[in-house]
Amino acid sequence: MEITPIGVIRTPHRSKDECPIQPPAAKGARGRVEVAGEFAEGLKDVDMFSHVYLLYSFDRAGEIKLTRPTFLDDRPHGVFACRHPCRPNGIGLSIVKVVRREGNVLVVEGVDMLDETPLLDIKPYVPKFDDIEGASGGWTDTVSWRSKPEGRE
Amino acid sequence: MEITPIGVIRTPHRSKDECPIQPPAAKGARGRVEVAGEFAEGLKDVDMFSHVYLLYSFDRAGEIKLTRPTFLDDRPHGVFACRHPCRPNGIGLSIVKVVRREGNVLVVEGVDMLDETPLLDIKPYVPKFDDIEGASGGWTDTVSWRSKPEGRE
Repeated sequence: MEITPIGVIRTPHRSKDECPIQPPAAKGARGRVEVAGEFAEGLKDVDMFSHVYLLYSFDRAGEIKLTRPTFLDDRPHGVFACRHPCRPNGIGLSIVKVVRREGNVLVVEGVDMLDETPLLDIKPYVPKFDDIEGASGGWTDTVSWRSKPEGRE
Repeated sequence: MEITPIGVIRTPHRSKDECPIQPPAAKGARGRVEVAGEFAEGLKDVDMFSHVYLLYSFDRAGEIKLTRPTFLDDRPHGVFACRHPCRPNGIGLSIVKVVRREGNVLVVEGVDMLDETPLLDIKPYVPKFDDIEGASGGWTDTVSWRSKPEGRE
């Protein structure tokens, strides 16, 4: 299946070392979701939503490993039980806050991806679909938040 | 960017007409997420989570239109302001409930995709990343739930 980027995400994060892990750690980080002109019409009404999912390519990810320690935990977890970028089919998923639309650009807040990340899709965050009451966070419930360990991809 | 399915999703939904719209409309619908054996190791700890995101290919979607009426609303909305399957880069996203793991198979509940849908990725639903307090559902807040209009893809 061939996937072609529909735009690019501009963020303040130029290197993996300075890139926050997940949007809650990127509060206030502004980004610009630049949709190619030919797709701009598809943005109609997107700024009615407070939040959207961005789907994007982990285009600078490292070696794929099926189990590995993660940013949050030194114990190894399966790649499908974590959000690590180095995964089969490197598609990233982040929920960001919509600030405003400027033509073919969506200004957003809470960006946790590298600058110039290829954009694959935008989907609205719909509370009645996506806000799962009482969901359990698995192993992430038992670890405390920490910054990214040095040298960890 | 080339994407290769990592497995297949088996569901009770054989045709678009009988396929529910979004997991809340598919409550109780059991599915089997069959991960190819070579990736099974990546499922370690995934059954610690109550819910996961499935990313999959809308492999039987129709013509892409940038604005269109949706299942929920006759007024046209931008394709990036809805979750319609007919979109540039036909990647679907659904949150399903984890029932249990059986080796390389994840038994799940709330499947809203067609039987034999190609699986692209599994990511854990992590409440501290994904449960957005006070999020607004844009135009979806102003429409009431309804069944799929006849003949609508």
